[in-house]
Amino acid sequence: MPDSVYPDSAHPDIAPLAVFLGTWVGSGKGEYPTIPAFEYGEELAFNALAGKPFLVHTQKTKAREDGRPLHTETGYWRAAGRDEHGNLRVELVVSQPTGIVEVLEGTFDGNCARLRSTTVSRTATAKEVTAVEREYRRDGSELQVRIAMAAVGQPLTHHLSAVLRLS
Amino acid sequence: MPDSVYPDSAHPDIAPLAVFLGTWVGSGKGEYPTIPAFEYGEELAFNALAGKPFLVHTQKTKAREDGRPLHTETGYWRAAGRDEHGNLRVELVVSQPTGIVEVLEGTFDGNCARLRSTTVSRTATAKEVTAVEREYRRDGSELQVRIAMAAVGQPLTHHLSAVLRLS
Repeated sequence: MPDSVYPDSAHPDIAPLAVFLGTWVGSGKGEYPTIPAFEYGEELAFNALAGKPFLVHTQKTKAREDGRPLHTETGYWRAAGRDEHGNLRVELVVSQPTGIVEVLEGTFDGNCARLRSTTVSRTATAKEVTAVEREYRRDGSELQVRIAMAAVGQPLTHHLSAVLRLS
Repeated sequence: MPDSVYPDSAHPDIAPLAVFLGTWVGSGKGEYPTIPAFEYGEELAFNALAGKPFLVHTQKTKAREDGRPLHTETGYWRAAGRDEHGNLRVELVVSQPTGIVEVLEGTFDGNCARLRSTTVSRTATAKEVTAVEREYRRDGSELQVRIAMAAVGQPLTHHLSAVLRLS
């Protein structure tokens, strides 16, 4: 991966997202109607690259009980101007080794980014995921993450919540 | 990113792709009907993770003349059984900071992976890309990469070719 830069070198388009910059670690809980509930450790990094109008998003989780790797994903955050309330419009694209890609759009109010998928696409062998909602909230020293999804025939349903701190 | 593993620890599903493992560097040429031709340096890494049935794909390019960063992308390769000719079916998902995600499927004959997009999706502010073909060929000590795309109203047209060597 390219080297990351400090917030004061970030491209002005993404400067409002500087509250997310860094590597965050913590734990979360997963649930979904089709699977047993589970707990996980998470590492989520947001990196800015010198002069580039995007953030690099890199995430991995591991099982709480035995540390085995669970999910991982990579992607990019983009800013897309302001909405009628003055909130930053944000875009997030993500790919996952489960064979799924997500395109999400939403807004960032200075603390919280709320995004919803505009498309979720997948390879022939991937599980069916049709919609995703993601929320990333900076609350003091915490980053709170919440993800809901519509998958394998279920309607949009809460799936993951994690609380992270800067490592 | 998680630590990568040596080929002999790779998950059996992706073991046939071991000829791609490692970090490849070299140079390439880009062209497209809508832009001036250009030359670039490329770094492309394929990493296997212990016990995981996928390869991590990480790529970045920089301009030949001044070294400024150009493209970068991240994604995952998956294997999906064999086709009727005994070739490995492969799947590749990629996200790009241009706001584009690609889902590609194809086959790998032991040396060359040829993939075509089944879907290309994008954020509201991204350029229009509607189809992509990618070829990754291991030829002796070289990795040859060729990418064609249909974008901004053009039909599927050759775009990039690079020749890389293990770094």
